Amino acid sequence: MPHIALPDLPGIRGPMAFRPETARPLNDLVDVLLRGPSSLTPGERELIATFVSARNDCRYCQTIHGAVAAHHLGGNEDLVIHVKNDPQRAAISDKLKALLVIAAKTAESGKLVTAADVDRARELGATDVEIHDTVLIAAVFCMCNRYVDGLATWAPDDPAFYRQRAALVAENGYAASTLTGPSK
Amino acid sequence: MPHIALPDLPGIRGPMAFRPETARPLNDLVDVLLRGPSSLTPGERELIATFVSARNDCRYCQTIHGAVAAHHLGGNEDLVIHVKNDPQRAAISDKLKALLVIAAKTAESGKLVTAADVDRARELGATDVEIHDTVLIAAVFCMCNRYVDGLATWAPDDPAFYRQRAALVAENGYAASTLTGPSK
Repeated sequence: MPHIALPDLPGIRGPMAFRPETARPLNDLVDVLLRGPSSLTPGERELIATFVSARNDCRYCQTIHGAVAAHHLGGNEDLVIHVKNDPQRAAISDKLKALLVIAAKTAESGKLVTAADVDRARELGATDVEIHDTVLIAAVFCMCNRYVDGLATWAPDDPAFYRQRAALVAENGYAASTLTGPSK
Repeated sequence: MPHIALPDLPGIRGPMAFRPETARPLNDLVDVLLRGPSSLTPGERELIATFVSARNDCRYCQTIHGAVAAHHLGGNEDLVIHVKNDPQRAAISDKLKALLVIAAKTAESGKLVTAADVDRARELGATDVEIHDTVLIAAVFCMCNRYVDGLATWAPDDPAFYRQRAALVAENGYAASTLTGPSK
């Protein structure tokens, strides 16, 4: 049961409906970062979000963003699981592997990211914007994960919920999908 | 030296100038959360932001938000230092002390916040919106701290810089102050 009286919506959507004043810029931030113009694909960016949320053990975020990632990756749910569990051996580019190292360190503490980590990503083709966005995606999901779990929101069990919701989000974006179905 | 080629501005302002697309919703979020209508005073909210940033050892964020807090608290810099170091014995309300317990746990992991922590805050007068905002402020600064440190931004040494900047932010807000002086 959530710690405060939230609208009966899963995960981050409960507190977002409770406090639309903060939901608006939160959704705008996630939309521009995960869906705006970028040389990282939406699938790659959702994988970074999913990976960080898994490291933070946030069930709702890792499941919904994993479903959105899979949606962008042609339905490849196995790849998402592989990236969460063992990213350095997953079937992703070496550049994305190097970015996930930066993301993992950022999630623990920004101070852990070293110049060598950044040089390695750059050698593998990462641009400064991609490195910036990786750090910010990791930081943003450290926020979302704490928001979702700090208020003890609930998460559905049914994988079909997340697949259905992922299709809606992939089609319309986060801001546009906040208060639209499926509600549970 | 920052990990990527950022505009030469301190702290979060370097990456914000580098990536204005994400700076806009980030500033909007911080403005509504720290400065929008609330039954927590701006000083109380800045103290939560400062306290979390200190726990995360983020020099820029704890210093600038500490300066903004002090500005709102009649220039009481000693109180800010006391809240960072020993909040439960600082000259703040019992309600704010209880909210800082929730903020500290959220900063470590949202899962650590218990129903008893929330009940305690509520008994001391905290509303659901105040509890929500405390969790979100703590979560937002876990993001900002990682963003600032994950890119290895620099922070000025001179306390006068932060006092001057704090007055500007207190007057105009975060969004309006992002690209305006003092630059260093």
